[in-house]
Amino acid sequence: MKTLKSIILSLIISVPVISVAQETIRDIRANGNPIINADNSATFYLKYATGVTPQLNASFLSQPAEMTYDSINNIYSYTSAPLPSNIYTYTFNVEGTPILDTSNYQMMRDITSVMNYFIINDGNSSSMGYLCDANKVARGSVVTQWIPSATTGSSRRTTIYLPAGFNPADSTRYPVLYLLHGSGGDEDAWQELGRATFILDNLIANGKAEKMIVVMPNGNIDRNSSPLQTSGERPGMSNGRWMDGAFELYFPELVEAIDNLYPTIQSAEGRAVAGLSMGGFHSMNISRIYPEKFSYVGLFSAATTAHASKNKIAEVFENEIDRLKAQMQGPLKLYWIGIGTDDFLYEENVNYRAMLDSIAFPYQYHESAGGHQWSNWRDYLSIFLPLLFK
Amino acid sequence: MKTLKSIILSLIISVPVISVAQETIRDIRANGNPIINADNSATFYLKYATGVTPQLNASFLSQPAEMTYDSINNIYSYTSAPLPSNIYTYTFNVEGTPILDTSNYQMMRDITSVMNYFIINDGNSSSMGYLCDANKVARGSVVTQWIPSATTGSSRRTTIYLPAGFNPADSTRYPVLYLLHGSGGDEDAWQELGRATFILDNLIANGKAEKMIVVMPNGNIDRNSSPLQTSGERPGMSNGRWMDGAFELYFPELVEAIDNLYPTIQSAEGRAVAGLSMGGFHSMNISRIYPEKFSYVGLFSAATTAHASKNKIAEVFENEIDRLKAQMQGPLKLYWIGIGTDDFLYEENVNYRAMLDSIAFPYQYHESAGGHQWSNWRDYLSIFLPLLFK
Repeated sequence: MKTLKSIILSLIISVPVISVAQETIRDIRANGNPIINADNSATFYLKYATGVTPQLNASFLSQPAEMTYDSINNIYSYTSAPLPSNIYTYTFNVEGTPILDTSNYQMMRDITSVMNYFIINDGNSSSMGYLCDANKVARGSVVTQWIPSATTGSSRRTTIYLPAGFNPADSTRYPVLYLLHGSGGDEDAWQELGRATFILDNLIANGKAEKMIVVMPNGNIDRNSSPLQTSGERPGMSNGRWMDGAFELYFPELVEAIDNLYPTIQSAEGRAVAGLSMGGFHSMNISRIYPEKFSYVGLFSAATTAHASKNKIAEVFENEIDRLKAQMQGPLKLYWIGIGTDDFLYEENVNYRAMLDSIAFPYQYHESAGGHQWSNWRDYLSIFLPLLFK
Repeated sequence: MKTLKSIILSLIISVPVISVAQETIRDIRANGNPIINADNSATFYLKYATGVTPQLNASFLSQPAEMTYDSINNIYSYTSAPLPSNIYTYTFNVEGTPILDTSNYQMMRDITSVMNYFIINDGNSSSMGYLCDANKVARGSVVTQWIPSATTGSSRRTTIYLPAGFNPADSTRYPVLYLLHGSGGDEDAWQELGRATFILDNLIANGKAEKMIVVMPNGNIDRNSSPLQTSGERPGMSNGRWMDGAFELYFPELVEAIDNLYPTIQSAEGRAVAGLSMGGFHSMNISRIYPEKFSYVGLFSAATTAHASKNKIAEVFENEIDRLKAQMQGPLKLYWIGIGTDDFLYEENVNYRAMLDSIAFPYQYHESAGGHQWSNWRDYLSIFLPLLFK
């Protein structure tokens, strides 16, 4: 009887324990990882060998957090504080090696690094969680297209957003935003890391941005595409042609090609150019040397000096002040500058604004917290888009 | 002196060891993983906690292979046999948990599973390694477009391939292949796992396939898109509407929408429908109930009976023999069936062919090794495409 009693007792005790363990594993497989709790905190699980201290490296943490081993469920876990409505990226990390979360199929690539992401969407149409999410709104099309270039002697892969309702057969003509990535990025970056097509769909559907075509070219003049689209090519930045002015001189050819391929408004009032980091540098230069082409300019955490060019093409960089004076006299309607106080380019932007101020060049300035990071660039895009083509 | 000598000696001995270790790690970071050796074998490295036995789970292995721990370089590794020119998928595996290779940014998603891939391309334009790779050939555009449907009362996300040189402004009209995925797949599957747009670019560039538009819809009638494109939606197969006939009844609406949106050849001679597994089932049914619409049909590892439908829509499935007889009298030019001898649907296909034979229904039959797997479906596509629109 004692043995039977102890068996029954152990069953009574062990059943809930087994149940919890199975429930945890079932949740991860059925519902994905992380689990979003009722208070919008997120619980991350990681199956890994015992005896190590995995860390969670997440965009909502200022430094990686240690995960706790749960010997009952035989799994590591970490629960965050409640999180605001936003998109978040993360990987696990064990002794310096990043570990992707194979229980979460949501991943995005940043050059050679792949990371997981998840979205907390509170349904508030102003929140970044809503703006970055695939809500039940009219959705635009996304085209990846190889556009021939006589300048480079090659075809260059370009990502193009066409707004919901776009129909080449009707007579509507659309304004165009040229949206440029940073060093080492490619024509996938704004769509993938920047969630640009989601932000556009949501702002347009809620009447906060005009319908527009958005052109996201590859900004490395000596590369034609993402490394995923070129056999044997290794990812990374341009080699010798980085920020030397060649991309800027190529740019009018892209504008002409887009004007030939799509029903665009073919004047400055219907054109914007904006970009992040190196793409901000490109936008600054392109709008300065072709002031008649663009009424709207956006510099997001922009490099404002050529950091790495060995052989700068003089005609792109000469007469800067005179050209800026001409630009402010032209069709310019908006010159928008955004930067984070922790950005390594912050001082450079202070100096650039001082130079603009010295010639009374008009601009809008947005200063945020944080540094050189996609969370800021998604924010800047969501602020910039509603200002265009009004 | 002895101490100095031993220090020098240890330097002489240790330098090459350190050098090898650093070289290994440098190679992984700089060149990605796996390393393709001169004989086209592949060496895979994995940084992981000691004391476990990681496995390599790769598409070229019949079962997972144990990786060896190298205590000098402090890394696990595995070297394959020399591999033919092809695309290969893999993950690592530790005690049942899949581990993605974060040293290789090349990944593809199969429903909820993400895996790494790599390509061995010998440059032979007939090899699958070449056909699946991004070669220096003219490249088509890829559009993801939400197409409204009155039948389903929603917009449905569709992936559309437009061949190189496509220009809606000229007078060229293109034939259309409708290419359908299997259970649990979505409108990204043929592009991502099937490498369909690469195979098309390469076959067309080498004069082996006609220029065509390829339409890859979502084949789950109660889902509008990939889960990555629908907020809060969990991936997986349709719930109640799986293989019940509803997708087939919706299909003419998609064909009409494509004919309105793109410069298509609007007759059977300019239309093909093909698919894998459930998509083969759809192709079989669609071409049988609308025989006037399609001259080319492809069944790749097709389900030929409705495996899971609880509430089959009778009008789709009734009068099968009479309809097949009408189909063979119509504009049908090619009815292509491909299946692997290890496929769980092999017997079903034997039975279906016996039925076709009993009414002298003409078809081409391709039997391969292997089972229900993407390596076969990529092969079948590369065989099927050159037969279309001749």
